[in-house]
Amino acid sequence: MSNVTLPIGPSLVLGGARSGKSLFAENLILNSGLKPVYIATGRAFDEEMSERISIHKDRRGKNWETVEEPLALGDALLQAAHPGRAILVDCLTLWVTNLMMAGANIDTECDGLIAALNDLHVPIVLVSNEVGLGIVPESKMGREFRDYAGAVNQRVAKASKNAWFVVAGLPMVLKSRI
Amino acid sequence: MSNVTLPIGPSLVLGGARSGKSLFAENLILNSGLKPVYIATGRAFDEEMSERISIHKDRRGKNWETVEEPLALGDALLQAAHPGRAILVDCLTLWVTNLMMAGANIDTECDGLIAALNDLHVPIVLVSNEVGLGIVPESKMGREFRDYAGAVNQRVAKASKNAWFVVAGLPMVLKSRI
Amino acid sequence: MSNVTLPIGPSLVLGGARSGKSLFAENLILNSGLKPVYIATGRAFDEEMSERISIHKDRRGKNWETVEEPLALGDALLQAAHPGRAILVDCLTLWVTNLMMAGANIDTECDGLIAALNDLHVPIVLVSNEVGLGIVPESKMGREFRDYAGAVNQRVAKASKNAWFVVAGLPMVLKSRI
Repeated sequence: MSNVTLPIGPSLVLGGARSGKSLFAENLILNSGLKPVYIATGRAFDEEMSERISIHKDRRGKNWETVEEPLALGDALLQAAHPGRAILVDCLTLWVTNLMMAGANIDTECDGLIAALNDLHVPIVLVSNEVGLGIVPESKMGREFRDYAGAVNQRVAKASKNAWFVVAGLPMVLKSRI
Repeated sequence: MSNVTLPIGPSLVLGGARSGKSLFAENLILNSGLKPVYIATGRAFDEEMSERISIHKDRRGKNWETVEEPLALGDALLQAAHPGRAILVDCLTLWVTNLMMAGANIDTECDGLIAALNDLHVPIVLVSNEVGLGIVPESKMGREFRDYAGAVNQRVAKASKNAWFVVAGLPMVLKSRI
Repeated sequence: MSNVTLPIGPSLVLGGARSGKSLFAENLILNSGLKPVYIATGRAFDEEMSERISIHKDRRGKNWETVEEPLALGDALLQAAHPGRAILVDCLTLWVTNLMMAGANIDTECDGLIAALNDLHVPIVLVSNEVGLGIVPESKMGREFRDYAGAVNQRVAKASKNAWFVVAGLPMVLKSRI
């Protein structure tokens, strides 16, 4: 991984649950040598989730500045993007979940995110789950979530300079800046 | 994508739900410069499905000739395959669903599809879902569907000259004709 | 596939259900020219599973020596690893399932597996399912299984010299020994 130079602007790290995508993304940020900033979209609404957040937090250690923002992700990015920093967003699928639970218009919110990404002049790594590779979910909400998550992933992938698909901790290149 | 020349015979585009696989496949067909023909296997058996079909149809526009064939896919291909045309089949997983609901023998039907694919002298792009990358489905029908879909994907992949796996709109090459 | 030379030590084959991962792995072993040994972790606890096991067994034929070991995988590997042999483990996800059902400590068991893998001087191909690419499972047990399976896949991938991700019978390289 030492040969990946993180460009200014957005890069996307996709993968499944427990695919090692967050660790891969953290290392991309750390290898940049810039001040690492972590924007957490996850909210600890139950014990299981608290534990996951705590495991990630312990792993990152104290060098990271952490911002918690479940909804206004574009704004959080614009505020955090000072020169000399590299920003990790973990993760877009929790952001989509939060927006759905808040009854937000996800297309509009995604417009705002893309506009922010296009405006920023620091490296940003966005982590997201690929969730569409199982059988059709039984619940309508599950199907809607899958549609929104897939649409957001496509739009962020299009706006990104690099994209990877991580399986068992090992990245495959989806897109590489020229 | 401008550097992909679509060969005579079958090519396969695999991906998850909302992975951008259909749009990628449509562009492969359009970039061929041939008359585009769309074979739709989906049936609008509920409102949700109607809406999805209508979104795809609007996106394709009026240049496309559309054939709806939920079951006799091999026959539909043989009838549509006139010189000067390029054919898109969207998608194999809905075809498998339709065959299961009709109580058909899927192995036999797949024999017929493969025979047709081997017989045709126009470019054909077949779109299919990869559905086996979640946990084991709870229902027996879900597991059977996953088995049939996977088996059909493997057989069509073997018969194809090109195959791609699309994630977030970005294709990875699975197979490339020599 | 004729250009893949199987190295001494572990290699990992990941894929979805019905992705063709087992057949790809069997061919890796057979192409080595070594005596093929099959370590089956699956147990026929119902008719559906019996049938799957029987299909795999018939396909492999009589050249293979078969060992059935649902739990003590590290020990089975150490016992089977005689010079002149190549070993297939099919599959790690069933092993994780068996360990969960037995109430074992999966991290500790995985330590033992990794230690055995690092100790062996024959080619070993381990087959495993990627199960984290659908939406979040509804049951807590489903989520735990997904977490354990993903963690084991990451650890075995790290210990492996080669790793592939198989889709529709077609392998993508995740990792390739130097």
